[in-house]
Amino acid sequence: MGKRLTKRNEDYSKWYNELVVGADLAENSGVRGCMVIKPYGFAIWEKMQAELDRMFKETGHENAYFPLFIPKSYLSKEASHVEGFAKECAVVTHYRLKNAEDGSGIIVDPDAKLEEELIVRPTSETIIWDTYRRWIQSYRDLPLLINQWANVVRWEMRTRLFLRTAEFLWQEGHTAHATEPEAIEEAEKIMNLYADFAENHMAMPVIKGLKTESERFAGAVETYCIEGMMQDGKALQAGTSHFLGQNFAKAFDVKFATKEGKQEYVWATSWGVSTRLVGALIMTHSDDNGLVLPPKLAPIQVVIIPIYKGLEQLDAISEKIKPLVKELRSKGISVKFDNRDTHKPGFKFNEYELKGVPVRLAVGQRDLENGTYEVARRDTLTKEVVPMDGVVAKIEFLLEDIQKNIYQKARDFRDTHITKVDTYEEFKTILEEKGGFISAHWDGTLETENRIKDETKATIRCIPIDDEREAGLCMVTGKRSERRVLFAKAY
Amino acid sequence: MGKRLTKRNEDYSKWYNELVVGADLAENSGVRGCMVIKPYGFAIWEKMQAELDRMFKETGHENAYFPLFIPKSYLSKEASHVEGFAKECAVVTHYRLKNAEDGSGIIVDPDAKLEEELIVRPTSETIIWDTYRRWIQSYRDLPLLINQWANVVRWEMRTRLFLRTAEFLWQEGHTAHATEPEAIEEAEKIMNLYADFAENHMAMPVIKGLKTESERFAGAVETYCIEGMMQDGKALQAGTSHFLGQNFAKAFDVKFATKEGKQEYVWATSWGVSTRLVGALIMTHSDDNGLVLPPKLAPIQVVIIPIYKGLEQLDAISEKIKPLVKELRSKGISVKFDNRDTHKPGFKFNEYELKGVPVRLAVGQRDLENGTYEVARRDTLTKEVVPMDGVVAKIEFLLEDIQKNIYQKARDFRDTHITKVDTYEEFKTILEEKGGFISAHWDGTLETENRIKDETKATIRCIPIDDEREAGLCMVTGKRSERRVLFAKAY
Repeated sequence: MGKRLTKRNEDYSKWYNELVVGADLAENSGVRGCMVIKPYGFAIWEKMQAELDRMFKETGHENAYFPLFIPKSYLSKEASHVEGFAKECAVVTHYRLKNAEDGSGIIVDPDAKLEEELIVRPTSETIIWDTYRRWIQSYRDLPLLINQWANVVRWEMRTRLFLRTAEFLWQEGHTAHATEPEAIEEAEKIMNLYADFAENHMAMPVIKGLKTESERFAGAVETYCIEGMMQDGKALQAGTSHFLGQNFAKAFDVKFATKEGKQEYVWATSWGVSTRLVGALIMTHSDDNGLVLPPKLAPIQVVIIPIYKGLEQLDAISEKIKPLVKELRSKGISVKFDNRDTHKPGFKFNEYELKGVPVRLAVGQRDLENGTYEVARRDTLTKEVVPMDGVVAKIEFLLEDIQKNIYQKARDFRDTHITKVDTYEEFKTILEEKGGFISAHWDGTLETENRIKDETKATIRCIPIDDEREAGLCMVTGKRSERRVLFAKAY
Repeated sequence: MGKRLTKRNEDYSKWYNELVVGADLAENSGVRGCMVIKPYGFAIWEKMQAELDRMFKETGHENAYFPLFIPKSYLSKEASHVEGFAKECAVVTHYRLKNAEDGSGIIVDPDAKLEEELIVRPTSETIIWDTYRRWIQSYRDLPLLINQWANVVRWEMRTRLFLRTAEFLWQEGHTAHATEPEAIEEAEKIMNLYADFAENHMAMPVIKGLKTESERFAGAVETYCIEGMMQDGKALQAGTSHFLGQNFAKAFDVKFATKEGKQEYVWATSWGVSTRLVGALIMTHSDDNGLVLPPKLAPIQVVIIPIYKGLEQLDAISEKIKPLVKELRSKGISVKFDNRDTHKPGFKFNEYELKGVPVRLAVGQRDLENGTYEVARRDTLTKEVVPMDGVVAKIEFLLEDIQKNIYQKARDFRDTHITKVDTYEEFKTILEEKGGFISAHWDGTLETENRIKDETKATIRCIPIDDEREAGLCMVTGKRSERRVLFAKAY
């Protein structure tokens, strides 16, 4: 505390790292690329999990758990899948350590080599579809709607806290259906569920769309995504939902008997969001003073700070606020009364500002006399004096209003960072000078997509689903295009 | 369904495996020693998690998340710890796969060898204490009360669903304290919390005690445990809580400044329960017809089965039970109305009996006419006809009564399976003919403990905490003993 954060417009990346560590969200560990999620950061993830889990269950999904390890041969069964993940796999080759005979310490026991290497799951399609072969015989077993909360490992070379780590936490849904339209409907339903969660809980506006072939999940026929816009003008893929066709059913020989008694391959989807969402949350709302959290996901929604001289005054304040704390909690509002005598109020003000607590109440001797509280809101950094008997209603109003306000602010920022361009020159200028999403015509070829990526580092974030079709000409090749797509530099 | 389970008195082990698979709790996967936890089994674990998590938080603990991987050098820092876990470690040695140049398929890329091997965590003391060194500077940072929900891997050679698997799910608490008495108090508090959970939620009576040196956790000064008694007369260790002294603080150099400004090593505890509890739950209550679940942990507490001819009758029943379902749910009771038209009532009766649903309602045309339900309880397999307007109160009563009744039944069984013996001959006879806990005097030496284990396969389950001290003579060596200890064969 005390030390100020680097400002966003000085060095956004440095600001982000200082904020994640300073607000006690997470830190790097002694294990390359793996982070430690600290209690305050984990509490945000727990709130996300609870809401998503409720939404999954409400839409008929059940949780289950599949092995951490995937035999190498399983991963190899779907060709494009292994192609996509082989380059970043943690591989278990042995199952025992022993004392070195020369006394040099603990070594891997060469006699304990596995017959077949095991991959630490980078995603679980293969182990799950190997299981589904046993679970699915008939149309009566379908649809199968399963979700798993788990850790996964992808050996990334450049990592950043929450945004890209070698190990991360996520949920992965894996569903099986009797027909193609049903599976597509599921993949779309989940994209919409993710968008609903992002907008209504994270207060993060997102654009729903389809990935181009080059950005698709390894093994998918179609990848649906939600894309957010961060304050530095870079996009962030916040969740993906894949229509897998019959690829995994064929690779793992999963057939079912139809009502008519025919044997057919099963249709599949998979979908996931991860602890990356915490990074997205931070970058969408926070400011130079620290975190700004949406009330719906804030571990502490209201903090009460006593301002006192001597323990007698502290006792008087404690007595006074007891019924208030009780009433707020009975309304499901999480409150912290910070009565630590080891820290001064000013220190505490800074700490909770840095940690993004939405509403702060301060109460001192004069407030007791006047029957008031000083109420401050984190999003606008404004404060006002409120009579004690109106404070609960005020807090309830503020929690709703902050949720709305930060959404609207992020929405305005995002909307002013979608720029339509018609020439490649203009594209490059906007990309460098303003950033954000750039809506442009593209000829639909991988060649042009790669050329733009190589020359500008911008990728096609998605083909937006809610946009109108519009005929035009590719800004690079001048070939015909049926619709605009969204480009951006991305996390 | 349809196929009956093997009876417990014919082959207990076979009964257990058939039940776990038949009731859709879990199954073996294609990965050696790793299981798939199916949705119904996972729902039981989720209920356990939710309650334990509430209890941990209520006692001041917070959740966090630490890396899956532990560098080999970390594991080696505490001598007895690495000794305990080296023999069963999954070791990651490489971080990439590639296509073999001879076209033979996907192989481990020899150029992607890690500089230092990573161990998949068998438990997290070492990675966590490496982190705590950064988190703890002063007495103000203590106590540190952290819990983690995670998967861990121990390469067991003989595995059994839930009871012993290479990968399992658990929670592991890791706390740091300023003084030895505070750490001991924490370890004891958690042992009591586990016992409370086992008895009041799992309806499983347990004995609280201390482990002997040979059965202690690798790296602990003292291991507290709770021990349950299964229906086959074998004991099951259901949870452990360790007082670690300053062992890990010294190994990882974690010191704090006391109020007086001195530098001292921190005192530690760690504690855990795992998916093994699901195995304990099954073996404590279930019978030859299938699972018997305590209502507090049953994913479905009440199932309603319509008995009808034709969809018109089914509609009439559906209409009738709608308000009942709504009322039960509003009371927090989980209800399933099984209106599948693809299965006959008899099939459904068997299925929910096998799955241990505590209360079953059946309703047919005659019930509609008479204003009654047929209500059956799973624990006693009895049923009665109940007037519709009294059925909610009846169900509430039954859920409480079943919880109490199965606890009492397990308690009676356990109590009649604690036998005091004073000679080694008697000990061997009881062990073979009756099983259960045997309370006997032991001279306190590892030598005698090992001899008994080698000759009878019985181990000292614990030195019970709640027993009176009683002087006596060791049943094997005749040496003096200050108290009886509990022996048993164990899972």
